[in-house]
Amino acid sequence: MSDAAAPSSVRFADRLANVETSAIRELFKLLGKPGIISFAGGFPDAALFDVDGIREASLAALATNPGAALQYGATEGFDPLREQLAAFMAVKGVTELSPADLIVTTGSQQALDLIGKTLISPGDKVIVEGPTFLATIQCFKLYGAELITVPVDGQGADVDALERQIEQHRPKLVYLIPAFGNPSGATMSLQRRRRVLELAARTHTLVVEDDPYGDLYFDQPPPPSLLALSAQVPGSRACLVHCGSLSKVLSPGLRIGWMVAPPALLAKATMCKQFSDAHTSTLAQAIAAQYLAAGRMPATLARVRSIYARRAQAMVQALRQTLGDTIDFVPPQGGLFVWARLTGAGGACHDGGVLAQRAIERGVAFVPGAPFFARQPDHATLRLSFATVDEDRIREGVQRLRAALGT
Amino acid sequence: MSDAAAPSSVRFADRLANVETSAIRELFKLLGKPGIISFAGGFPDAALFDVDGIREASLAALATNPGAALQYGATEGFDPLREQLAAFMAVKGVTELSPADLIVTTGSQQALDLIGKTLISPGDKVIVEGPTFLATIQCFKLYGAELITVPVDGQGADVDALERQIEQHRPKLVYLIPAFGNPSGATMSLQRRRRVLELAARTHTLVVEDDPYGDLYFDQPPPPSLLALSAQVPGSRACLVHCGSLSKVLSPGLRIGWMVAPPALLAKATMCKQFSDAHTSTLAQAIAAQYLAAGRMPATLARVRSIYARRAQAMVQALRQTLGDTIDFVPPQGGLFVWARLTGAGGACHDGGVLAQRAIERGVAFVPGAPFFARQPDHATLRLSFATVDEDRIREGVQRLRAALGT
Repeated sequence: MSDAAAPSSVRFADRLANVETSAIRELFKLLGKPGIISFAGGFPDAALFDVDGIREASLAALATNPGAALQYGATEGFDPLREQLAAFMAVKGVTELSPADLIVTTGSQQALDLIGKTLISPGDKVIVEGPTFLATIQCFKLYGAELITVPVDGQGADVDALERQIEQHRPKLVYLIPAFGNPSGATMSLQRRRRVLELAARTHTLVVEDDPYGDLYFDQPPPPSLLALSAQVPGSRACLVHCGSLSKVLSPGLRIGWMVAPPALLAKATMCKQFSDAHTSTLAQAIAAQYLAAGRMPATLARVRSIYARRAQAMVQALRQTLGDTIDFVPPQGGLFVWARLTGAGGACHDGGVLAQRAIERGVAFVPGAPFFARQPDHATLRLSFATVDEDRIREGVQRLRAALGT
Repeated sequence: MSDAAAPSSVRFADRLANVETSAIRELFKLLGKPGIISFAGGFPDAALFDVDGIREASLAALATNPGAALQYGATEGFDPLREQLAAFMAVKGVTELSPADLIVTTGSQQALDLIGKTLISPGDKVIVEGPTFLATIQCFKLYGAELITVPVDGQGADVDALERQIEQHRPKLVYLIPAFGNPSGATMSLQRRRRVLELAARTHTLVVEDDPYGDLYFDQPPPPSLLALSAQVPGSRACLVHCGSLSKVLSPGLRIGWMVAPPALLAKATMCKQFSDAHTSTLAQAIAAQYLAAGRMPATLARVRSIYARRAQAMVQALRQTLGDTIDFVPPQGGLFVWARLTGAGGACHDGGVLAQRAIERGVAFVPGAPFFARQPDHATLRLSFATVDEDRIREGVQRLRAALGT
C-alpha cells in the first residue's frame, strides 16, 4: 500500500477540486528541526493545561454515571454539559440562553463544518475577513462556497466595506472572528459590533461569530460578543450564529465546542451532525461538564491570561526594539497572535513567504500571512504566535528574525 | 428563540432536500413510557462496560503524557492508538497493515461521512444492502448519492444481484456490512466474500466494508473480513475501504472508529477530516490506546460475547415458541439484532409499522424494518435487539409481542 496514486477504482468527488493542500502544512514539516524557536503554532501551551483538574473531572465523570458517560448520547449534546455551557455564557453577558439553544460540537471546527453542510450550496457567496482562519476557508470551499473578503484593521472588520459587500453579493452568510482574530489578532470595536448586528438585522443576513479566543484577554475583556449584544439590537438574534470552544482555554484534546443558532438552523445542524459523527465523545463531554461544575475555570482563565499577556508584551517589545520600522503591527489585546506586515524599510525582506524560509534556516519559525487570505493575498504579512514560547526565547527568536530579515 | 420556523436570514443548502427526519426518531420518543421492554435499541448494554478498565486507562493517559493527551493532535490520529489498532486488526487476520494505513475517526459514523465527502458527487450511484444501516443511507444522501439496493438473505448480500447492479450502474462505491449486519443480522458467507473481492478487483469498483459487529460472534468467529481476505485476492486491496469501531465492543461514548483505505483515498479523507473536526478527541484516543495496550480487550470481548449469545438464544427460542409461524427469521450468529419478517399466518398482523404502534401499547418496543430500505421497503420486516434486555424480560417482551400480533 505504498503507491500514493489513486487506483482506478477511486474516483473523487468534484468538491475536492475546490481545495488544495495547505502550503502551511509543508512548512510545519520543517518544525522538527532541533533548536528551532516556533512562533508558528496556533495552539495553547500544553504546559498550562490544568491536568489535575481534568484528572479529577475524569474520575468524577466515571464515578457519577459511568453508563451515561460511556454510552451513545443525544446528538445535541450531553445535557449536563449544555447546562454548564449556558451558565458559562451567562457569565459573559449572554442572557436568556437556555441549554436547548446550543448544541455541543466536536471542537468549533465541527460547528464550521455543520454551518457549511447546512447552509452552503455550490456557488453560494460567503463573506469572510481578509485575513481569516485558514480552516474556515477550506471548510467552506469544500461545500462549494465562493468567498468574498472584507478588510480587517486594528478595530476588526471594516463595516463600511462589509455593508457594500453584503449589498453587492447578498451572501449566504458572513463569518467573523470579532475577538482577537486568527490570524489578525484584531479586536472589533463596540461600535462596529453594533453596526454589524444592525446590518444583519436590516439586510436579513446571517452572521457567524466564531469566538474561541474571547476569554484570553490581557488587561480588559473585549467588548461583549455579538451574541451578548444581540439582546440590544432588535431582530439581530435571529440572524446570528455563535461558535464557542474550550480548546484555547481548557484543552484542545477534549474537542469540545458549541454552537448557538436560531432554532430552525440548530435543528438542521443537529440532523447533519447525526450523520457526521452521531455525537461528540460523551466521555469528553462528561469530563468538561464536571470540570465546569467544579468551578475551576475562573482560576484557570486567570492563569493563562496572565501568562499569555506577559508573552505577548515580550513579543511586542522585542519586535519594536529589534525590528524597528521593518515591521508594522497593532499590539493584540488578547488571544495568541501578533499579525504583522513587513514594510521593506531599509531594503529588508518584505515577503512573508521568503522570510519564512530564511527564518527556518536561522532557527525561528512563523507562518506567512498570504494563505490566510481567501482572495488577494497580502504577501508582506506574517502571523507570529507568542503562546507557547517563554519570554527569553521570544526575545531570542526575534533576534533570529532580524538576522533573517537581513537588516 | 422558541419560533421553530426559519427566519428569512436562514436559507438552507440544497442538499438538505435529500433527507427527511427519521420516522424512527418519532418512535423513540415513545420509549420513555414506564415499564416498556425495549428491543428498539441499536446500542450495547451499558451495564457491560468495563468501567474499571476505562478508569485505569484514563489515569494512565493523563499520567503518561498529559500534554499530548490534552493538546491538538494529528488529523490522522494519535500514533499510539494507530499502533494499537493495527495490532488489534492483526489478531483478526489482517496482515501487513501498518499504523500509517489507517486513520482514526470520530466513531465509524465519521468514516462514513468522510467517504461521502471524499467520493460522492450529487447524482453518483451507490449500492447498499436492502436493508442497511439507516445513518449510512442518510449520510450518503446528504452528499447527493442515488442509492441502489442489493437484496440480503441469511448468507449476506446477494452477489449475483450485486454483479448485475455493478454492471448496470457503475456505482461510485458499494457499501456492505458483511458481519452481523445492522439491521439484517446476516453473516456473509466466505464464498460470497471471495466473490465480492473478485468482483471489485475485476470491475475496479470501490467496496466499503463496515465492520462494527464482527467481534461480537456467539460461537464461532465469522469468516475473515473482506480486508483480511483481500490478501488472497489479487487487486482487491486497492478497491477496499474498511471501517472499524470500538463502539460496540468497548464504549460508544469514546467515539473511536478507524478507516483503512488505499493511500490516495486515505490522504483525501484526512484532508476532509481536517476541515470536519480537525481530529478525534486526543484524550479519548489516548484512553483507548491505554486500554488496548493494557491487554484487557480479549477478556472484555469474551464477556460481552457470552452474554449477548445467551440473550440472542433466549430471543430466538422465545420468538419460535411464542410466535410460531407468524414470524420468520434466520437466527443471528453474532451482533445485536434479530431481523424478522411477519408472515401474516393465521391472520396475524403483517405490517411492521402497524405492529410497532400496537406493541408500544402492550409495553414492548422494536423498530419497524421499512425505513432501513433505501428503496422498495419491505413493510413486513422488523428489527429486534436483544442486547440490552435480560433473558426473563426478553421472554416477557416476546409474550407482549404475541398479544400485539393478535394471535
